Amino acid sequence: MVDADFVLHPQLALDSLLVADWPLCQVRLINDQQYPWFLLVPKVVAAKDIIDLTDAQQLQLWQESKQLSHWIRADYQPDKLNIAALGNMVPQLHLHHIGRFKTDVAWPAPVWGKHPAQPYNPAQLADLLARWQPRNFI
Amino acid sequence: MVDADFVLHPQLALDSLLVADWPLCQVRLINDQQYPWFLLVPKVVAAKDIIDLTDAQQLQLWQESKQLSHWIRADYQPDKLNIAALGNMVPQLHLHHIGRFKTDVAWPAPVWGKHPAQPYNPAQLADLLARWQPRNFI
Repeated sequence: MVDADFVLHPQLALDSLLVADWPLCQVRLINDQQYPWFLLVPKVVAAKDIIDLTDAQQLQLWQESKQLSHWIRADYQPDKLNIAALGNMVPQLHLHHIGRFKTDVAWPAPVWGKHPAQPYNPAQLADLLARWQPRNFI
Repeated sequence: MVDADFVLHPQLALDSLLVADWPLCQVRLINDQQYPWFLLVPKVVAAKDIIDLTDAQQLQLWQESKQLSHWIRADYQPDKLNIAALGNMVPQLHLHHIGRFKTDVAWPAPVWGKHPAQPYNPAQLADLLARWQPRNFI
């Protein structure tokens, strides 16, 4: 299902933290407290578009996307979920999952390129990682 | 699978044309010749987020997304596919599929809110509708 020699793109490593390691994807938190913003990064070398994945990998991706979406909804009760595979800047396949609020700084625009990230403080990160710890295994 | 009383959101009707009617979704072309930009609109009343769909509907959505992605790739050979469910402006669930090129006017930014649409001319639209006609049944 995944590639043993998968290596995360350095830009994704810089912008986000690992919160869970699922069968297909790394679940990562974008370090920006302005939005609950997560990534699914399939551990598949050289996948750029979703249709570069095998059928089995695509099915698993959507399972993991559904699970992540439900957790974002449960934790944050956003007004809207934004789910997107863009990758114009970072070609390694990654799927954004962002809880959006009518009161957030970018609403109703998409979040990309709008406002510089505001990193979480260490206490906030510790809370988030603790919340995600039991979700490592699905 | 779909709702008989589904009605397309008026903003989507204004911005796009029906090119195919698939089991779950309307396939619609955004009337903007700057990008090959299509929508999948599930014919399901009151669905806002993907996880509002039933499991069977979600599976069908990803099947139709895969099919549409393959056709965009075959027809246009884009550098990247952008796939996104945003819906901050138009709450009716719709899934963007956009073929992106390193030479397009918005690259590498997302397309939303960047450049006013440049509608196709009638000859271009006739060509596109003819190409899509045999794809009405999948």
